Amino acid sequence: MTGLGLEDRCAIQETIGRYAHTFDSGDAEGFVAVFTDDGIFEVVLVDQPDQRAVFQGSDELREFAQSRMATVGHVLHHVSGIVFDDTTADRPRTRATLIATRQHRDGPALVTHGTYVDDWRRTDAGWRIGHRLYLALGYANTHQQT
Amino acid sequence: MTGLGLEDRCAIQETIGRYAHTFDSGDAEGFVAVFTDDGIFEVVLVDQPDQRAVFQGSDELREFAQSRMATVGHVLHHVSGIVFDDTTADRPRTRATLIATRQHRDGPALVTHGTYVDDWRRTDAGWRIGHRLYLALGYANTHQQT
Amino acid sequence: MTGLGLEDRCAIQETIGRYAHTFDSGDAEGFVAVFTDDGIFEVVLVDQPDQRAVFQGSDELREFAQSRMATVGHVLHHVSGIVFDDTTADRPRTRATLIATRQHRDGPALVTHGTYVDDWRRTDAGWRIGHRLYLALGYANTHQQT
Repeated sequence: MTGLGLEDRCAIQETIGRYAHTFDSGDAEGFVAVFTDDGIFEVVLVDQPDQRAVFQGSDELREFAQSRMATVGHVLHHVSGIVFDDTTADRPRTRATLIATRQHRDGPALVTHGTYVDDWRRTDAGWRIGHRLYLALGYANTHQQT
Repeated sequence: MTGLGLEDRCAIQETIGRYAHTFDSGDAEGFVAVFTDDGIFEVVLVDQPDQRAVFQGSDELREFAQSRMATVGHVLHHVSGIVFDDTTADRPRTRATLIATRQHRDGPALVTHGTYVDDWRRTDAGWRIGHRLYLALGYANTHQQT
Repeated sequence: MTGLGLEDRCAIQETIGRYAHTFDSGDAEGFVAVFTDDGIFEVVLVDQPDQRAVFQGSDELREFAQSRMATVGHVLHHVSGIVFDDTTADRPRTRATLIATRQHRDGPALVTHGTYVDDWRRTDAGWRIGHRLYLALGYANTHQQT
């Protein structure tokens, strides 16, 4: 391992967890705080790269989170397999794998699955996401849910 | 990061993994040993908080594990997104996200999904769970399986 | 925690993540590089131990990866619950839990779930898998997919 210390790696892993828990518990402000002030959340469908959505900056991220939380109901983000593709001290990049689940009438169901590619920024308030790219393998019912 | 060192954090993460592996491999004694002697495992359905089950102390936890392992068949607990909500040196609290799967005749199926909120105790035998709250988003077929 | 330092543990966890990302992104050479040159990937169905496949050495592993990637389409490996069952300094053993998902026409679907038991080797190129045993709980449609 090079560049980035264990403390930093663990803090970044924990922030990836915070993204999931803030969204899943309906905490829009906590969700926004995972990103830098000008942070970007970009969603791309792997097989249809023209299917793309981009949310940039705290206002758009908050609006995205609030509207999505209101419509999608209870979901859970399960993120695993965090690896550091770039361990540059101040701008590392990670990849991780997502399954999101939702509760249907007859039980839990898969909503989407894909890969997060995250560019990190070290800030005075700790590690934040400068850019998260979600490479979605697909969604249930072709109805997009992030 | 404050309060709790990396060694402690890793040991706690590993114990969360041990909960899954002991249950999934039918190791009831190993499962009991993840908790303190007076440890509590509490299950609540998010949308029906009156649907609640509580198992307290090694005897009840063992009985729960043995009877559940006998009836539920092969399951797997997939736990991700571990975050430390409280890093008090001796009584930290974590949250994590669960998917449990089971093998049906035609393939793997989701059993339940939800969030674990764990209160930890530092003991002479290492970190143990003093209280695990499972906030279940739901179960397959409304048939409760933890 | 004993034996194995935190740096080593994190490097091993990251290599478990690399197995998933190399396979899922179609990087057969990266997949082969997760194993030692004589590394073994063994697959066993829990309830049918005679259902067994073994791939040994870089050539067989490459062939396995290339043929599987070509036929299985887009899959994602979600690995969680990494625990160290043996922390011998140079030959540790880990266990972890897998869900693999695939994109079907109507959305994400579970492909297989099971447990990885990994024997590790410290090499000049970092930690590599000497032997990975995949204890599969089952596959979708009884059609084997690793």
